[in-house]
Amino acid sequence: MLDTPFTFELRGPGFVPSRHDNHIQRTLASMRGQYCDPAAYEALLAKGDALLYEVYELNRPHKAGEVLHGISIVHPGRVGEEYFMTKGHFHTVLETAEIYYCLSGQGAMVMETPDGEWAVEALSPGRVLYVPPRWAHRSVNTGAEDLITFFAYPGHAGHDYGTIEQQGFRKLIVERDGRPEIVDNPRWKKITN
Amino acid sequence: MLDTPFTFELRGPGFVPSRHDNHIQRTLASMRGQYCDPAAYEALLAKGDALLYEVYELNRPHKAGEVLHGISIVHPGRVGEEYFMTKGHFHTVLETAEIYYCLSGQGAMVMETPDGEWAVEALSPGRVLYVPPRWAHRSVNTGAEDLITFFAYPGHAGHDYGTIEQQGFRKLIVERDGRPEIVDNPRWKKITN
Repeated sequence: MLDTPFTFELRGPGFVPSRHDNHIQRTLASMRGQYCDPAAYEALLAKGDALLYEVYELNRPHKAGEVLHGISIVHPGRVGEEYFMTKGHFHTVLETAEIYYCLSGQGAMVMETPDGEWAVEALSPGRVLYVPPRWAHRSVNTGAEDLITFFAYPGHAGHDYGTIEQQGFRKLIVERDGRPEIVDNPRWKKITN
Repeated sequence: MLDTPFTFELRGPGFVPSRHDNHIQRTLASMRGQYCDPAAYEALLAKGDALLYEVYELNRPHKAGEVLHGISIVHPGRVGEEYFMTKGHFHTVLETAEIYYCLSGQGAMVMETPDGEWAVEALSPGRVLYVPPRWAHRSVNTGAEDLITFFAYPGHAGHDYGTIEQQGFRKLIVERDGRPEIVDNPRWKKITN
């Protein structure tokens, strides 16, 4: 852990940071149950365990004064008509925000609150997205190239993946007539705590 | 104040955000006593109150879970041999960090802690700089174009400008033989609280 200022390079076209402490790779096998078409999921998995997305993180203490940060790369592709996407999560400390700067690609952020609100915002190079406290968020790649974003969030936020794993997001992004469309998630069901 | 996700465009060459809530403009007159050469300062001011730097901010609550963010633009120029720069500050809550992503231009971040450490890191397009908790920071434009950075920091950080206004930074960035050089600040003096 560094206590002195540090820098790293973040340049196109690939935007892999020149320095990073963690490199997380999520494959299809790790997202069982998260896509809306189980048959399409199993058929794709039978062809191989595709790499869906990658995250490069810089280590900092998980404390409120720190700004955790890194790069997210969602690869292009679909499971049936549903685009490749991240698992998505709430923050464990619900009252924490996150900010994204889109570096490359085309996509969307799917978001919702525990209170019933939902939102979808398009991502394209040069666009900044602010995800306020309370909003779960998932990146979806709707394009033909990698969707690459730089992200930063408070050090004490934490990740709650379990809620989304169990109930999903209210909205899905699917391809219809060659274009992304927002549709209701037929399997969405609020879990009772 | 928005409680729902929001986006804005941040694109070159100028990188003025398509949406912003505050536009701060700092001129030479607001930095009396901050440059090391008072005669050069007065001579330049006599020619007009030059615009040194601008900050575009997005409003969010000043709370720990938020990520305050915006764009800093330091214009090119010098006061004597010292490059145009921001006032620089500690965070009021000392144990809070800040992260910068350099979008355009050439410069440096001058940093120091209350404990006697100092650091200078170069800024150029594509470079990310992490300023850990406890480090005061000032952007310096050492190039011929605008130095433009995207910044993000914890919502509860606050700004302490007074300490730097009174004691300055330990190190200055000056032009010598046409190139930036780090030199001791002859007028640096730690204030006693």
